[in-house]
Amino acid sequence: MTTTLLTNIGELTTNVAADGDPCGTLHDAAVLIEGDRIAWVGGAAAAPTGDTTLDAGGHAVIPGFVDSHTHLVFAGDRAPEFAARMAGQPYAAGGIRTTVAATRAASDDELRANLTRLTAELHRQGTTTFEVKTGYGLTVADEERLARIAAEVTPEVTLLGAHVVPAEYADDRAAYVDLVCGEMLDACAPHSRWIDVFCETGAFTAAESRRILTAGIARGLRPRVHGNQLGFGEGVRLAVDLGACSVDHCTYLSDDDVTALATSDTVATLLPGVEFSTRQPYPDARRLLDAGVTVALASDCNPGSSFTSSMPLMVALAVREMGMTVDEAVWAATAGGARALRRDDVGVVAAGARADLVLLDAPTRVHLAYRPGVPLVSAVVKDGVRL
Amino acid sequence: MTTTLLTNIGELTTNVAADGDPCGTLHDAAVLIEGDRIAWVGGAAAAPTGDTTLDAGGHAVIPGFVDSHTHLVFAGDRAPEFAARMAGQPYAAGGIRTTVAATRAASDDELRANLTRLTAELHRQGTTTFEVKTGYGLTVADEERLARIAAEVTPEVTLLGAHVVPAEYADDRAAYVDLVCGEMLDACAPHSRWIDVFCETGAFTAAESRRILTAGIARGLRPRVHGNQLGFGEGVRLAVDLGACSVDHCTYLSDDDVTALATSDTVATLLPGVEFSTRQPYPDARRLLDAGVTVALASDCNPGSSFTSSMPLMVALAVREMGMTVDEAVWAATAGGARALRRDDVGVVAAGARADLVLLDAPTRVHLAYRPGVPLVSAVVKDGVRL
Repeated sequence: MTTTLLTNIGELTTNVAADGDPCGTLHDAAVLIEGDRIAWVGGAAAAPTGDTTLDAGGHAVIPGFVDSHTHLVFAGDRAPEFAARMAGQPYAAGGIRTTVAATRAASDDELRANLTRLTAELHRQGTTTFEVKTGYGLTVADEERLARIAAEVTPEVTLLGAHVVPAEYADDRAAYVDLVCGEMLDACAPHSRWIDVFCETGAFTAAESRRILTAGIARGLRPRVHGNQLGFGEGVRLAVDLGACSVDHCTYLSDDDVTALATSDTVATLLPGVEFSTRQPYPDARRLLDAGVTVALASDCNPGSSFTSSMPLMVALAVREMGMTVDEAVWAATAGGARALRRDDVGVVAAGARADLVLLDAPTRVHLAYRPGVPLVSAVVKDGVRL
Repeated sequence: MTTTLLTNIGELTTNVAADGDPCGTLHDAAVLIEGDRIAWVGGAAAAPTGDTTLDAGGHAVIPGFVDSHTHLVFAGDRAPEFAARMAGQPYAAGGIRTTVAATRAASDDELRANLTRLTAELHRQGTTTFEVKTGYGLTVADEERLARIAAEVTPEVTLLGAHVVPAEYADDRAAYVDLVCGEMLDACAPHSRWIDVFCETGAFTAAESRRILTAGIARGLRPRVHGNQLGFGEGVRLAVDLGACSVDHCTYLSDDDVTALATSDTVATLLPGVEFSTRQPYPDARRLLDAGVTVALASDCNPGSSFTSSMPLMVALAVREMGMTVDEAVWAATAGGARALRRDDVGVVAAGARADLVLLDAPTRVHLAYRPGVPLVSAVVKDGVRL
């Protein structure tokens, strides 16, 4: 296999904790890439030679971002709704249902073209692993094609048939839950790794959520939960109870919720793009971290509440708004996302891990928060290949 | 002269107000570029032919951003100070003086290399006109070379000898004010268009500021003021009294300050990158706009309080945090900046104006706020040349 030596790395974030530094920072470092994997990590002076060399120019290198929560398969755009919301003007918005209607009306090729464009956008910004949820189809056929199309770009596909009860089931919620647990799950499970529910007032109750997640688990999917976004509720406790890999949003948490998370393996995934784009209060990352909870950052990229795919902005917002240090935020956007997806081959720079690396046009990862909005990603390597 | 037809523009922001739309929006539009100027603007169907064609792909086009407040000539980096501040940790920061020491120690070529890199960064993000302040030299020779080097990249050079009283004059402020008004002004005026002071508790008093600005005006420079950033004060009233083209920051304003601005030609330039990066309260743009004040947005790009050069992020922050609509924010970041620099040849798309145009990878300018952090600039034309 061909080897490439990535060398002249001024600051390397490995996320292999050492000497009290969770980011496992190395200076004057090098990384040997062999095929799609990392073969060696260490000081540049002691580096083996590679068939080719990639010079990091003395700049910082971090693991590729792991965006563990996105909704990238959809059609349409909700820019007018966004502009009206931010101006405080009334707007006859259909919310998620607007996107459901546009998505159902789109052809597979239209959905694929949109997803391909967004995938390229994520890559350009340094995201090398990402999860994609269904949830804008809400029929068996539509959810199946969203899962199938998503699986063309990532193995981390999540069935989110329980995103919202579609209008045609408004008078018979139980029938929709039956559909999700039955035919929809049968159709989507072959394309999916995860099952998710939006457990919130106005979406699905804890009892409905439990039924759906339990059905998914029985089919071999692993559970994750949207919870505690808009108010206090049972999402976090349900997630912990079912051993969910992650519970996402976590803005409104009781002390019991925090304790439950801290004593579990469930990651709290925070999505500050949503709060930025909806002018809602941010979750309190500091409280979670101080309690010992594992925190991930993700974009929640979707056309309604957070149409950003920028993990660097998530880092900057986490530092500005959520009480995280830069190191905690960068870790959460890389290793934290990997934990939320139960992946040990990404989010770290270590021998055996995937060769997913981001070269920054900056001397240190601190610049991701210190220089908000500035495109600092100068090169991206995914599976050993420079994109 | 060679002509280029920029065509297939889905949404064109001209900033030539029409029918109650300050952004002067045209759909299905085209722009004819002749040399470094715009020769014609109108509907694509009626467009003249050009020697060459540039296809906007049905996307949005806006005037190049006008960043009317930056401090781009400096050396060094204050990332550790930033990280400590955001983590609430003590840090023996020298503030502006840290950068003064690094800048004085740097060679002309080092300063020029840093400025060239930042200029390219601004261009990539769609900024086609920008002001640059001195203020990290604070000796006659150092301020002169900062002004001279800045003038190599922009005509909008501002003498900011009155940035802070340098340590060596701590016991004799009056002597430093004399120096700024005398020798420093003599040395810098040939390279400068503007004179600025930091009129704030801890920097320069209103009396000192008035003396410095008056001296600059007498030398043919036009005045601008940093004021009312950290607390209530006399900066705004001084600016209006002296006919300053802009007063910048404007976080702490009395009703009298707002009235003074509304009845003057002084632009209020807001710099939300500072509040983002220092966790300070944002200025209330809504209050200013509702009073009839002309508002500009700028980056304040500097290594201490706002090391961002992203005008798209300024638009997004203005919408999220300062009560501006997307249209108001885009106008303020283009035409508003032009007003603050008293330029009528930039910030608009009109026959006779400079051909400074930004092509967005988006159907509408709304995406600048709707898609925060995502690099949406797909091409930049400056003085008729694609960068």
